[in-house]
Amino acid sequence: MNCLVAQSGGPTTAINASLSGVISAALKDQNITNIYGALNGVQGILNENIIELHKTFTNDKSLEQLKHTPAMFLGSCRFKLDKEITSPQYEKIFDTFAKYDIKYFFYIGGNDSMDTVDKLSQFAKEQGVDIKVIGIPKTVDNDLFGTDHTPGFGSAAKYVATSILNIAHDAYIYDMKSVTIVEIMGRNAGWLTAASALARNEYNVSPDLIYLPEVPFDTYHFLNDVKNLISKKNNVIIAVSEGIKDLNGNYVSATATNQPTDGFGHALLSGTGKALEGIVKTALNCKVRSIEFSVLQRSAMHIASKTDLDEAFSLGNKAVEYARENLTGIMLTLNRKSNDPYTIDIDYIPISEVANKEKQIPRHWINEAGNDINDELLAYMKPLIIGESPIKFENGLPHYMNINHLLDKA
Amino acid sequence: MNCLVAQSGGPTTAINASLSGVISAALKDQNITNIYGALNGVQGILNENIIELHKTFTNDKSLEQLKHTPAMFLGSCRFKLDKEITSPQYEKIFDTFAKYDIKYFFYIGGNDSMDTVDKLSQFAKEQGVDIKVIGIPKTVDNDLFGTDHTPGFGSAAKYVATSILNIAHDAYIYDMKSVTIVEIMGRNAGWLTAASALARNEYNVSPDLIYLPEVPFDTYHFLNDVKNLISKKNNVIIAVSEGIKDLNGNYVSATATNQPTDGFGHALLSGTGKALEGIVKTALNCKVRSIEFSVLQRSAMHIASKTDLDEAFSLGNKAVEYARENLTGIMLTLNRKSNDPYTIDIDYIPISEVANKEKQIPRHWINEAGNDINDELLAYMKPLIIGESPIKFENGLPHYMNINHLLDKA
Repeated sequence: MNCLVAQSGGPTTAINASLSGVISAALKDQNITNIYGALNGVQGILNENIIELHKTFTNDKSLEQLKHTPAMFLGSCRFKLDKEITSPQYEKIFDTFAKYDIKYFFYIGGNDSMDTVDKLSQFAKEQGVDIKVIGIPKTVDNDLFGTDHTPGFGSAAKYVATSILNIAHDAYIYDMKSVTIVEIMGRNAGWLTAASALARNEYNVSPDLIYLPEVPFDTYHFLNDVKNLISKKNNVIIAVSEGIKDLNGNYVSATATNQPTDGFGHALLSGTGKALEGIVKTALNCKVRSIEFSVLQRSAMHIASKTDLDEAFSLGNKAVEYARENLTGIMLTLNRKSNDPYTIDIDYIPISEVANKEKQIPRHWINEAGNDINDELLAYMKPLIIGESPIKFENGLPHYMNINHLLDKA
Repeated sequence: MNCLVAQSGGPTTAINASLSGVISAALKDQNITNIYGALNGVQGILNENIIELHKTFTNDKSLEQLKHTPAMFLGSCRFKLDKEITSPQYEKIFDTFAKYDIKYFFYIGGNDSMDTVDKLSQFAKEQGVDIKVIGIPKTVDNDLFGTDHTPGFGSAAKYVATSILNIAHDAYIYDMKSVTIVEIMGRNAGWLTAASALARNEYNVSPDLIYLPEVPFDTYHFLNDVKNLISKKNNVIIAVSEGIKDLNGNYVSATATNQPTDGFGHALLSGTGKALEGIVKTALNCKVRSIEFSVLQRSAMHIASKTDLDEAFSLGNKAVEYARENLTGIMLTLNRKSNDPYTIDIDYIPISEVANKEKQIPRHWINEAGNDINDELLAYMKPLIIGESPIKFENGLPHYMNINHLLDKA
């Protein structure tokens, strides 16, 4: 019998580590003959776009390189299966499973992908087909329900904190007033923006202010916060989630972009950082700059967290073990035993309890004013960025897995 | 007798390596008693804002940490000395030199800083004062005249190429058309944008297009280039210098930002990448994203080039030697002997030949169509990004030198 693995949703630096973990364990499993990978998530199953991973990954060196390659080796998709789990779509997928003699299907992804795991495992159950369908979590957003944290978050958090520290060193060199606004990913959950607080140390108090989607954003209070700080110190650095919403629940990024257009009359999609930059520039007479980490925060393998990559790998490994133990319709989880020393267990949760839920930062982990986080949240995040995962360099650049199989298709 | 060192201009990851080199050599020089540092460049001399570096840096460990701290340990300034080199400003500076018994003054900086070195050495000569004034080059822009390349460029180039490679891995995962535009620093010289080409390898052809300030930017040809490529492949990644100018010599970034305003009627300063994003969105029906590396390309110590940091350190070292040899009014230079194996000599050039000049990419290192670079330029850049400089981590974050002395002043 064979197994199939696929990846879905937004990229992280840890999602290939989980893939590496799955392949590593499957290679050692005597009952598994072939290890297949579907390209571009479930779309690859529907289109029978399937590659043979057991031929590509034959040794520890290649698995190690995969573990240290950012984004998705198998490509991704943004694809929701039909709501009605009796549709021909499901039959097509299970026909492919049968054709390739697939008994285990591992899906590495975020919220939408867990919905897919939920539906496919339901279909298998209803049809009485013996296929184990298992979800392995990943997302830089850390917003998956049922797990202490999500693989991919720790590395993104390390990128965010390191970059904020670098930005602080860059900003503090001039003896003049300046405001720097850093926009960080997170539409509804502020975990990654909160990670900016990890940059604080014995000399650096930045970010001076942190605004999260969990707290309604009040421009009046924001400007007061900034004015107050800039009257006392030279450089103010602000971390803000892309997804902050005003008191009426509208995205702040949308507010300021109703008017501007480019030279052709098309709306310019300014981000949240740009919107706040405009607001501060209007109110204060000093240098204002906004910085958007954009996709780099989820793809910067060169500053990945070793803890994160190792955990992601372990989850992949354990997923094969759970399938062998006849578990199905589950998502693997990380359970924290203690912060210091940091200890975790790998466990699982029925997928129906996970799918389509979103985990936000609890309000009591945010300060009362809603412009900073507290020490409890800091203690929660600290262990997740520990350790540097050595990547191989060639000619001065990271030496990643060749992804030609994704490029040939166009 | 004592020496004084200061830093000026925009930050790089290598400018503290040169400072470390100066201090390291000065500590070993039996004729030098105290090593002073002026805070915020010449402004620190004018304001007598001076710290004792021989007390902070007493061992190799601290010098090693300084070498791996981004931006300026001594702070920076954007300050042009009076044109008339007889002004009281100069007397004030030389009074400070006399007061602190300064015989060597080392200034680490870019074009403007070399102008300061030029003027101060002229003043010393005219006044018959025995003070050696020596310039040590740095700039991520690589636009200093008289040196094969400039410390700071190699590390920024490594950041740019690594980030483009990460962005490629991030973009290629989706089986859909997308255009990614990456804006890279360089107002008049495109060296750093050209470094994006280093990201190409056996599977990655991106960036697919490169636009430099050295070639007038023609929107019509640009759109044709993009349309042509996107008809043949899924993901097009474009590297563009912030400083590209249209056929009339106007900044492209300015063109598209004449119209848009924020919610308060204030002009939004869109960058060049945003401007091109608007143009492509208007013309093509596909996903378009622009990314700006912003200050991260000059401060990302965690992906610095070992070659670059080592050269910067060596220049600092050699500067002390040149001062001891009674040289003054010079800037240190790097002379390349060969590309492969990469060998360089350290030399110097009279400062008058350097000041206020700008080195652009020669036209014959850019392809005829003006949308890419050629192999000669690639061969020139390749050795500069070689080697990873191990930085110390603490609690998962880079452990830099404490810069409290810069923060206390506000």
